[in-house]
Amino acid sequence: MSKRFSGELEMKETEIASGPPSRRHANKVAPADAKYKVGVPPKLSLFEEFKSTVKETFFPDEPLRSFRDQSKSRKFVMGLEAVFPILSWGRDYNLTKFKGDLIAGLTIASLCIPQDIGYAKLARLPAQNGLYSSFVPPLVYAFMGSSRDIAIGPVAVVSLLLGGMLENEIDPEKNKSEFLRLAFTATFFAGVTQIVLGFFRLGFVIEFLSHAAIVGFMGGAAVTIALQQLKGLLGIKDFTKKTDIVSVMRSVWSSVHHGWNWQTILIGISFLCFMLLTKYIAKKNKKLFWVSAISPLISVVLSTFFVYVTHANKHGVAIVNHIKKGVNPPSVNEIYFTGDYLAKGFRIGLVCGMVALTEAVAIGRTFASMRDYQLDGNKEMVALGTMNIVGSMTSCYVATGSFSRSAVNFMAGCHTAVSNIVMSCVVLLTLELITPLFKYTPNAILASIIICAVIGLIDIEAVILIWRVDKSDFIACMGAFFGVVFISVEIGLLIAVAISFAKILLQVTRPRTAVLGKLPWTNVYRNIQQYPEATRVPGILIVRVDSAIYFSNSNYIKERILRWLIDEEEFNKEKNQPKIQHLIVEMSPVTDIDTSGIHALEELYRALEKKEIQLILANPGPVVIGKLHDSKFADVIGEDNIFPSVADAVQARDPKTEEL
Amino acid sequence: MSKRFSGELEMKETEIASGPPSRRHANKVAPADAKYKVGVPPKLSLFEEFKSTVKETFFPDEPLRSFRDQSKSRKFVMGLEAVFPILSWGRDYNLTKFKGDLIAGLTIASLCIPQDIGYAKLARLPAQNGLYSSFVPPLVYAFMGSSRDIAIGPVAVVSLLLGGMLENEIDPEKNKSEFLRLAFTATFFAGVTQIVLGFFRLGFVIEFLSHAAIVGFMGGAAVTIALQQLKGLLGIKDFTKKTDIVSVMRSVWSSVHHGWNWQTILIGISFLCFMLLTKYIAKKNKKLFWVSAISPLISVVLSTFFVYVTHANKHGVAIVNHIKKGVNPPSVNEIYFTGDYLAKGFRIGLVCGMVALTEAVAIGRTFASMRDYQLDGNKEMVALGTMNIVGSMTSCYVATGSFSRSAVNFMAGCHTAVSNIVMSCVVLLTLELITPLFKYTPNAILASIIICAVIGLIDIEAVILIWRVDKSDFIACMGAFFGVVFISVEIGLLIAVAISFAKILLQVTRPRTAVLGKLPWTNVYRNIQQYPEATRVPGILIVRVDSAIYFSNSNYIKERILRWLIDEEEFNKEKNQPKIQHLIVEMSPVTDIDTSGIHALEELYRALEKKEIQLILANPGPVVIGKLHDSKFADVIGEDNIFPSVADAVQARDPKTEEL
Repeated sequence: MSKRFSGELEMKETEIASGPPSRRHANKVAPADAKYKVGVPPKLSLFEEFKSTVKETFFPDEPLRSFRDQSKSRKFVMGLEAVFPILSWGRDYNLTKFKGDLIAGLTIASLCIPQDIGYAKLARLPAQNGLYSSFVPPLVYAFMGSSRDIAIGPVAVVSLLLGGMLENEIDPEKNKSEFLRLAFTATFFAGVTQIVLGFFRLGFVIEFLSHAAIVGFMGGAAVTIALQQLKGLLGIKDFTKKTDIVSVMRSVWSSVHHGWNWQTILIGISFLCFMLLTKYIAKKNKKLFWVSAISPLISVVLSTFFVYVTHANKHGVAIVNHIKKGVNPPSVNEIYFTGDYLAKGFRIGLVCGMVALTEAVAIGRTFASMRDYQLDGNKEMVALGTMNIVGSMTSCYVATGSFSRSAVNFMAGCHTAVSNIVMSCVVLLTLELITPLFKYTPNAILASIIICAVIGLIDIEAVILIWRVDKSDFIACMGAFFGVVFISVEIGLLIAVAISFAKILLQVTRPRTAVLGKLPWTNVYRNIQQYPEATRVPGILIVRVDSAIYFSNSNYIKERILRWLIDEEEFNKEKNQPKIQHLIVEMSPVTDIDTSGIHALEELYRALEKKEIQLILANPGPVVIGKLHDSKFADVIGEDNIFPSVADAVQARDPKTEEL
Repeated sequence: MSKRFSGELEMKETEIASGPPSRRHANKVAPADAKYKVGVPPKLSLFEEFKSTVKETFFPDEPLRSFRDQSKSRKFVMGLEAVFPILSWGRDYNLTKFKGDLIAGLTIASLCIPQDIGYAKLARLPAQNGLYSSFVPPLVYAFMGSSRDIAIGPVAVVSLLLGGMLENEIDPEKNKSEFLRLAFTATFFAGVTQIVLGFFRLGFVIEFLSHAAIVGFMGGAAVTIALQQLKGLLGIKDFTKKTDIVSVMRSVWSSVHHGWNWQTILIGISFLCFMLLTKYIAKKNKKLFWVSAISPLISVVLSTFFVYVTHANKHGVAIVNHIKKGVNPPSVNEIYFTGDYLAKGFRIGLVCGMVALTEAVAIGRTFASMRDYQLDGNKEMVALGTMNIVGSMTSCYVATGSFSRSAVNFMAGCHTAVSNIVMSCVVLLTLELITPLFKYTPNAILASIIICAVIGLIDIEAVILIWRVDKSDFIACMGAFFGVVFISVEIGLLIAVAISFAKILLQVTRPRTAVLGKLPWTNVYRNIQQYPEATRVPGILIVRVDSAIYFSNSNYIKERILRWLIDEEEFNKEKNQPKIQHLIVEMSPVTDIDTSGIHALEELYRALEKKEIQLILANPGPVVIGKLHDSKFADVIGEDNIFPSVADAVQARDPKTEEL
């Protein structure tokens, strides 16, 4: 077995009893002289230790496991398949799978076309760039990605974030071409970020954003996006550029008398109700999911026809007007590789790239665990990065996996990423042939479609669960939500990240400690707060430290143990109990200790020595016992004051405890 | 007892055996039907939980403990004494203590006067400001501080840091008055930072800088400071403004032919050797520490006399020249409270204030533990902050505790902070009367004194210990050291902080897990890598998770457990062992779990279900079992699949294991 140590251990005296096992007792006990000393594991060389740490940190899922014991040519083929998974699942492709993928592809295409136009507006980009981003990126992903269910394209939150950050730098109305160029630059660097993270297996960085903060951030972004749609839904001309709820509401109400166009509102609200109704139907009866999936496209067709027939655009109903026909033009020359905008594009791309990754990885994992296949998060990141880099060179902006579309993809029966290829083809057809038909599509419809889409991002159930389980998680969630809604998307994201980091740091700096007592009739010692029948041992205080002892908490741990001691001494004085003579530190949860931790133990030892109390360590793990020996602290405290378990320590120091 | 829960617990069935204890067996066993179910602790209200978390995070040392059960007037007096500790120890003052403090005060005064002039040059400030900073701040500290051994004044590292950061903003030669004003502004905000951290009990923030990184940073700063002194020691006129070793060496060697002044070198090197010799003598014989303590002052006196007599200043030996006579002028008007420099001063003050805090707190703790008295870190910070704010208004710059002077203070027999008052008085005398005598003091002597002082900051023993105990700590140490020496002090500090944070984050994201086996003849389960005699239980895989399960590691933990399972299944297939049917997760080190952790457990449960393996949880702590119930996961997994210990779980699921 690869994980077992084959070398010899430096074991202390191990006496194994020699008699035959007795079968009469229900709970077997070791013969009285069977003792185990704390084993010191063999010392790994520095290189082996480093190799092991790197492996666990960067390659915990052993991605090269299947490469073992293979011939060179086979390894080459496997390598190619790893980079282009389509080569491996493409071989097992058949007509049944194609049928499923075709239907799924057509369904998500019908959903994505109106969404793309709407999301491009969110990003303050021309409508055709949204369609472009549903053409090239899904194709690239189908060749390089591993998730079978994800649907690629522009998404609401990233479009909002990108649009907001770009707008801070350049005015999209006045400097249209520069704005577009910066968008491509940002997309390019988003792709670079994603590839770098994936290639260097730094994907775990994404995990530093807590789930609760993401729920809050997504919910807040959804509310912000929905509020932005009020402009299109109510037909308001003068609208604030800011995204926070106060500015938006002010814009809405200040134009209530002359800015709202009743025809727009009528069209928008009626189709919104229609789509919400279909959504409700789909929720109640899973088989009718397709009703909700095609309702956006139906709404677009019907409303376009209606506006065309009634000439509603002459009555103040804003329409999409012109979408440039034709396939993606190349945009390599548009990307800023020098100058001021390079740095700005890099920064925006970094942030958007990482948010896009978070969504895609979450979606990929969800469906992979539902369908029981493995997904290599870092490999996915490389695929997504490549997709965005290629996209930036073909006039696309940041694309990633979309929650709603992937769910529809899944329910429509997709088998592989071919559904994305089918969707691409439909988008291509649209770009080549159908774009003129969107001329009379009212903006209100796009607004309704977006509102309907983002409502699904507000996960009330998750928030309730968070409230019930972990209140500090709830604070993180609410902090992110209100940050996005009341300030801005970037600040909300910053709050989400800051709260996540603060949680990590706080949990590290204030670990739990517990006083242990003996459960009667057993040799088991448990937390007295959780098991009230656990009784203290007279003259001995047993404290368990529930964390590794590092510089970030070593001083606190030392002071906390001394405080338990002071509490205990006060109590004993009141109740006339025997004075504490031994303090046992149960160290099984202490997975590691560094130099600051060893200092803290030394200071604890000296402080106890002054009070004439003996410090005893119980059950130190392999790493800790090694470091105690390296630092010579084991000599300071004495080898005979280190025991493999609390029970052994108590027995050795206080034989009276047997007679409870 | 304040820490015990007095409320009732929701206990599951607890059957306690009723027979008398049998005394014949060496290891007592519980009667066969004594079972303990996992206790669910009482649910604290949200407010109580919040209060308890705040208390543990911000008030772990219970500073108001002694205020309990006291009358109102007594509380007021105690409050005053808390803010001005001099009121409490002043009452027990007597002649013996004064004798000790007087001698100690005179000794550290003799040490500090030449150092102050030298450190002020390091900070690019006029010499008198160094002396001012040994006059007012120690007086303020004596009234408000709690450490009995610390010696207050300007220190080498903070002077270097302050000088470097100020120089980046303003040229000290061309804009002398603005430079000085910015220095006062920075000192003011350093004090504000320190007071805010102390008052809001955020002192634990200092602990995020690891001991190893501090050792490296201090060593690097010492080397940098020593290199800077080559200018004064060799009498070079044109010297680089940069601090990194490459620039300094280039300056030194480029001026070797015409810039080095042999008279300066002679004076400097000879007295440097003299002081190093006295330092060596003091190290060998602790009683002769005073020899090393007064050698700087003797060197100054002798060299000044020598230069005066030989008119060496006309032969190219640079001298101190003019030190302004008289006590500290007020400088409230000099501080920038508006404008650009306000922000710059704030930033510089924040950094220098925190570095100063780190030194002072480390010194305070060291001596407090040596002398066995308690020190409230946060209260100390308030005292240090007040001292710096008052100092900024009286022409002082950032002062803090000095390692070397505090050690001398301690060995010279100080009893209280009165030694600082004595030192202040001597400095006052110096300012009023003796400053003209420094006119002919050669700069080389100050350079030698500083070199001698900072050599003590290079702690080779600590570095060797760090290398032996923890290699990643060693990398942190070396990173900080080389960052300071080869780049700059600020970058080195940034590297030290970044490495410390990276260590914390990495330890959080890759916790340890271990496969457990049964120690024969016992009911004890141990890590099979540490205890090779621990044997696996057929059909059951037992994994212990050695950390709380949070968003930062929940996905990794789930994947790691599944990987242990795959390894085990491979092994079983090879060796024809029975298939795994149960997976027990030993959860005693899992001190907490958040919503992401619960999700991970759910995904693990479902993944195992697909493989027809039952997930069992053993020994969850009080917080975790509470959250498992809140999230209804305990219902999902089944209450009868949660056991108080691994042994109980194994017994319940596989009775055959008794017959080993």
